[in-house]
Amino acid sequence: MSEKITTPDWLETAPAKGTYRSIFRWGAPDRFKHPSPGFLRVIKNGLDLPDDYFSRRLNTAEVPVKHEIPPGIPSEAVAAIASIVGDGNVSTDDYSRLKYATGKSMEDIMRLRDGKAGYVCDCAVHPRDKNDVMEIVKFCNEKKIPVHVYGGGSSVTLGLESRRGGVTLVMGTHMNRVLGFNEANQTITVEPGLMGPAYEDMLNNAPERFGARYRYTGGHFPQSFEFSSVGGWVVTLGSGQASSYYGDAYDIVVSQEYVTPAGSFKTLEYPATATGPKVNDIMKGSEGCFGVLVGLTMKVFRYFPENARQFSFMLPDWRSAVDAAREISQGEFGMPAILRISDPEETDVAVNMYGIAGTPADSFLVFRGFKPGKRCLLIGQADGEKGFARNVAKNAKKICRRYGGMSLTAYPTKKWMHSRFMDPYMREDLNDIGIVIDTLETSVTWDNLHNLHEKVRRYIKENANAICMTHASHFYPQGTNLYFIFITPWMKTDDYLRFHRGIIEAIMVNGGSLSHHHGVGRMMGPLMERHLGREQMDVLRALKRHFDPNGIMNPVETLGLD
Amino acid sequence: MSEKITTPDWLETAPAKGTYRSIFRWGAPDRFKHPSPGFLRVIKNGLDLPDDYFSRRLNTAEVPVKHEIPPGIPSEAVAAIASIVGDGNVSTDDYSRLKYATGKSMEDIMRLRDGKAGYVCDCAVHPRDKNDVMEIVKFCNEKKIPVHVYGGGSSVTLGLESRRGGVTLVMGTHMNRVLGFNEANQTITVEPGLMGPAYEDMLNNAPERFGARYRYTGGHFPQSFEFSSVGGWVVTLGSGQASSYYGDAYDIVVSQEYVTPAGSFKTLEYPATATGPKVNDIMKGSEGCFGVLVGLTMKVFRYFPENARQFSFMLPDWRSAVDAAREISQGEFGMPAILRISDPEETDVAVNMYGIAGTPADSFLVFRGFKPGKRCLLIGQADGEKGFARNVAKNAKKICRRYGGMSLTAYPTKKWMHSRFMDPYMREDLNDIGIVIDTLETSVTWDNLHNLHEKVRRYIKENANAICMTHASHFYPQGTNLYFIFITPWMKTDDYLRFHRGIIEAIMVNGGSLSHHHGVGRMMGPLMERHLGREQMDVLRALKRHFDPNGIMNPVETLGLD
Repeated sequence: MSEKITTPDWLETAPAKGTYRSIFRWGAPDRFKHPSPGFLRVIKNGLDLPDDYFSRRLNTAEVPVKHEIPPGIPSEAVAAIASIVGDGNVSTDDYSRLKYATGKSMEDIMRLRDGKAGYVCDCAVHPRDKNDVMEIVKFCNEKKIPVHVYGGGSSVTLGLESRRGGVTLVMGTHMNRVLGFNEANQTITVEPGLMGPAYEDMLNNAPERFGARYRYTGGHFPQSFEFSSVGGWVVTLGSGQASSYYGDAYDIVVSQEYVTPAGSFKTLEYPATATGPKVNDIMKGSEGCFGVLVGLTMKVFRYFPENARQFSFMLPDWRSAVDAAREISQGEFGMPAILRISDPEETDVAVNMYGIAGTPADSFLVFRGFKPGKRCLLIGQADGEKGFARNVAKNAKKICRRYGGMSLTAYPTKKWMHSRFMDPYMREDLNDIGIVIDTLETSVTWDNLHNLHEKVRRYIKENANAICMTHASHFYPQGTNLYFIFITPWMKTDDYLRFHRGIIEAIMVNGGSLSHHHGVGRMMGPLMERHLGREQMDVLRALKRHFDPNGIMNPVETLGLD
Repeated sequence: MSEKITTPDWLETAPAKGTYRSIFRWGAPDRFKHPSPGFLRVIKNGLDLPDDYFSRRLNTAEVPVKHEIPPGIPSEAVAAIASIVGDGNVSTDDYSRLKYATGKSMEDIMRLRDGKAGYVCDCAVHPRDKNDVMEIVKFCNEKKIPVHVYGGGSSVTLGLESRRGGVTLVMGTHMNRVLGFNEANQTITVEPGLMGPAYEDMLNNAPERFGARYRYTGGHFPQSFEFSSVGGWVVTLGSGQASSYYGDAYDIVVSQEYVTPAGSFKTLEYPATATGPKVNDIMKGSEGCFGVLVGLTMKVFRYFPENARQFSFMLPDWRSAVDAAREISQGEFGMPAILRISDPEETDVAVNMYGIAGTPADSFLVFRGFKPGKRCLLIGQADGEKGFARNVAKNAKKICRRYGGMSLTAYPTKKWMHSRFMDPYMREDLNDIGIVIDTLETSVTWDNLHNLHEKVRRYIKENANAICMTHASHFYPQGTNLYFIFITPWMKTDDYLRFHRGIIEAIMVNGGSLSHHHGVGRMMGPLMERHLGREQMDVLRALKRHFDPNGIMNPVETLGLD
């Protein structure tokens, strides 16, 4: 069990500026989290790799970006845009043109590791305010120049690719300000480029920052939290890890202000209305295809970290874990903020990663009948007012026990909380030693969960030498999100894409949605018509024609619109 | 205080079939609730009416409908429609043509009391299923014949008027079936013409009816509950009296199936997705302008009537009542299902109507400083799981006490629950004796509540001899609904409409929405562009052009679209 795993020394320095690696690497350049020996052993054994598999390092792509892709727009256009925003706010160098057209999908990474630039924009523009955006969109619409929007750059759906060159608006540089805080209405109005940690920190410190009576939270913590923007959450319909209580970005946004080729507007800030179909809804999830989000008003929530109640359970099997989670979600006692059930394969990995495997605690679990390969981990945390949180946790625990669960105390939840934003850092290390790790996710109704889980796992196992860990998170009375994490030996890009697109196909044909919270982008775009049907796609196309008759907004395949 | 009020004997027989009165009268023809002497005294004193004002009866419009409005479509078209649905499912008589084009607004009533037919459809059609609807819409689209939809007929926004004649589809006759009940997903799929009581009764008796494990509730109880349809709730964006917990119709509908001139589709039933703008949202509140709703899947909720906790408080004044309700809505302990605060004028009426005025209890309240003309009533009920409901009620009570409230026990809540669906029956009695009673409602953010309340009250008081009772119900962390009930002496229709439209104008210019839950119809339609702005109306118009290029769906002014 404890055989030595030989790896190269992990890279411990920030990638040099201007390199391919500096673009695709996750997170802060000088932060690292390396795979534990336990995790590497799981991978080695799971994939049946030779002893020396991890000892070599692949090409780490620490070379300067150089692509010499000729710009698609004339230099006069760039000059005109610079005259709007100022010279310092326009970049046309090779690096910027690639960086702002690149997301964080495995496909992006593979291409960049091969030193291939793929699709780049012609210039990255850093608008100073919404007036800049209005002038740029007007100009680009007249000249038929494509316009893309870059928030935090965490897209895993090819949402940032500049297929026809053009302009990419980088919102985080200047448009990251707070426009208003309204404690009576419990809302905050911000520019879209504000990033997660600054946003949350401000709300947590509302008394000091805004003279507020109470402290607040935004309630939105996607895994990309530290490197994604408030605007990005809304235009791609993201979900945070506490969404079961606070809601998805969809639920949290009250009002949006857009600049589109067809005009600019801000939706009204009412808590609810019966004044026809809501334009605020129509813009949610529009992924830059209708216009540029320039301001948004979000709900905020009272912040009571002292009330949080954490719990975790081992359930005997996947069926009982799903049933327990469903009863919790349908029990009408309020939702836990965090709720997550891991399938047997993910549970086994977690037990290894958290150093539980082989300990007396593990032996006790096995003795009590919670067998590896069958048992399933459930972790949770209840937020809110004290009595509410206590009652949610109490009911959730009661239900877990009813389904044969054994309490593991708050330990696994704490362990998960501790590392939840750091885990993505392991990807580069794993890629460096020839391991692919990637994820896909889908929305599913309760009555189709087991079917979908089995079918997608079967596809993955039959089509690759793969570890497949699945969890359900983001719970609703009507269903949940299934999140697949798959690990394989490194493949050629084309082979990998064939395998990857096959998983998406398996999800779709077995009744999962194309996305629960990663969005559509250009990855799911081509499948949208099969998924939604022609009639519903025609509705989205009619909206596209209205907002963007010249087809300049995030064009080519996004949302399957063109 | 207890002077005798002389009224004619209240009518105690169902209006004769085929009469104008049988169309505009609320509810079941053979059910009655007459105004109490206490209520009449409030009206007499509030409006400073002469002693004999109530002694005469106005024209009660118990005459047969006869309008001789020539049909706008040729008899061959009617025959063609009859060949689709069968002869027995098409009516072209004067009565049907008027009944199915008439709602329940004061404007409808005044017109019908004067024996004026206004706008009528050419034929009322009772489709048997969605295939009938598809064929009718196809035929009408080819022939450019207007198509309207009649659910329960409770529109108070002129939503049913057939301004250019045409066909009205009556959904309640046949299309009122359950299409599926899914306990795992906690959803029910129904045809749109199913009425409130049948729907709720079925869910309450799910074990007997569907072999379900648990009992359920739809959680949707608008005042029109007994005479409105599930489909109507969704297409007009209605709210139930327990919406603060269960959500508005907007929140409760999971999926919809539509027949439109541009094609038919059913939206997918996922609990949440990130697959672009949601067509399910776009159709919510479309008020028949895009197509005909032929099926819908709704969330259902566990039914725990035994857990309900009722409470009520007297608060010292409106400001403290509003602050208490806001703190309850923002406290993160879950929402009460029912929450309602009455302003001082409504509170005084309630105290009189419930027979509390002048009793020792009332004297004690006054002694404790709760003065008539200032004090405000709050009533509430918490639903859900036992511990949840208990904790919600506990926190709500604590907040009421913090704002100086005195508990009135559960009595006023029970009293209100008892009569909540019966109060509308008083309207005909009051109208008969020369009293107008009408309502308007609006959505408002917390920070504008007092301003809006004062300005609307001022308009009403300055422009009529009026009692104006206001309550807030339907609570959200970001705001609430203000509901104005106004009572005036009978006026000429034109004078009344001028006054009434002035109230809507006062709501709009002072920052209220055009509607929180009554919808838009043709009453608010002409104001939509001023309210939402041209850019947002252009979005709705683009959708209209897409779904209904020939402009046949509920045409002329609905939603302000044409």
